[in-house]
Amino acid sequence: MHQLVLLRHGESVWNKENLFTGWTDVELSPRGEEESRNAGLLLKEHGFVFDLAFTSLLKRAIKTLWIVLEQMDLMWIPEHKEWRLNERHYGALQGLNKAQTAQEYGDEQVKLWRRSYKVRPPALAEGDQRHPSFDPRYHSLSRDLLPDTECLQDTVERVLPFWQQQAVPALQQGKRILIAAHGNSLRGLIKYLDQIPDDDIVGLEIPTGSPLVYELDRDLKPVRRYYLETGKAG
Amino acid sequence: MHQLVLLRHGESVWNKENLFTGWTDVELSPRGEEESRNAGLLLKEHGFVFDLAFTSLLKRAIKTLWIVLEQMDLMWIPEHKEWRLNERHYGALQGLNKAQTAQEYGDEQVKLWRRSYKVRPPALAEGDQRHPSFDPRYHSLSRDLLPDTECLQDTVERVLPFWQQQAVPALQQGKRILIAAHGNSLRGLIKYLDQIPDDDIVGLEIPTGSPLVYELDRDLKPVRRYYLETGKAG
Repeated sequence: MHQLVLLRHGESVWNKENLFTGWTDVELSPRGEEESRNAGLLLKEHGFVFDLAFTSLLKRAIKTLWIVLEQMDLMWIPEHKEWRLNERHYGALQGLNKAQTAQEYGDEQVKLWRRSYKVRPPALAEGDQRHPSFDPRYHSLSRDLLPDTECLQDTVERVLPFWQQQAVPALQQGKRILIAAHGNSLRGLIKYLDQIPDDDIVGLEIPTGSPLVYELDRDLKPVRRYYLETGKAG
Repeated sequence: MHQLVLLRHGESVWNKENLFTGWTDVELSPRGEEESRNAGLLLKEHGFVFDLAFTSLLKRAIKTLWIVLEQMDLMWIPEHKEWRLNERHYGALQGLNKAQTAQEYGDEQVKLWRRSYKVRPPALAEGDQRHPSFDPRYHSLSRDLLPDTECLQDTVERVLPFWQQQAVPALQQGKRILIAAHGNSLRGLIKYLDQIPDDDIVGLEIPTGSPLVYELDRDLKPVRRYYLETGKAG
């Protein structure tokens, strides 16, 4: 039996302000930090231990991981920060207010960008300072890997090589894994693990700060999945 | 020109209580956290950037690193946690009060353990629960690597393979490196870099929370070294 826990980061300062975030590197809000502490305590209370952790290159996920590891007294385990676990790239919408965007482009268009599997928001222009090619954290990556916008399908497709190349070998070695990431990169993993159709995955809501536990068989097929909840410690 | 910064962790809760710490995994004190924040701000103020960070498997060094990276807005850089950067193992003295130990063994003996290069404190017994073989963080290591006590020479000798195998290749690739570690593991690196004799290194004091900057030539020989100080930002 292999064990995997997925954790969506807590509330960020932009969630509160109703802005499209994507790859923008914003901080956890105080409430997001509190959610992370609770997630760590919950995991500890339920007797979980990890050998290895993965997170994205964005601080709201990294900070969530750090707070959880500190609560669990597991600060010493290896952490790998992977760009493939980043949130979906929201293209030229990043940094814009969701309500204003709806006024400008219409509710239907915005809904399509947010809730379709294959429709991309407008791309960032080449010279736009928000483009990941300007950010040193992506400098070691080949330019053709860097998105200037993504639909959910794009996010799913770039998450899967992480799963195959990083998570699978570690799980096969018997490592117990924690992945602290984002709504859409986690949708990618869940879609793959649970074989969820394209049209259904867009509507799947993953609560923030709630550890999602997967028990996997020897072929890494899910045999059980559940959210850890307060008050159910065994 | 290659760049390396060494940082000794801030005050721990046991420093305050005058206990032998060694590999005991104690937390930073609030003052130690404050020292770490100041170190991070100082590095940022002076325009330092890192590509890679190393730390030990002990939380007082890891937390120091995390606080520094958060202050510098560099939470996304890779971190490697290495047992070879751990503090000197203090054998059976770990957890004992320094004053009581002096009463029991005599001032001279304790001074010898603390201040000689080659004299080891009494070893931990095989079955002693404080022995690193009981600690999951060391389970992947070969048993003969795990110390049950160390003199400073032992610490220096186990730090050097880290330098050769991890730090040197990264520096040669042009990476700017931060090492957040402990008084004695840092003494090991400084002894090697500055070719300090055995008898002198034991007396070298490294202040906590003060970034020690090394500029190294293409052969990784030091051409300049200095502590960053407040109020000297360029």
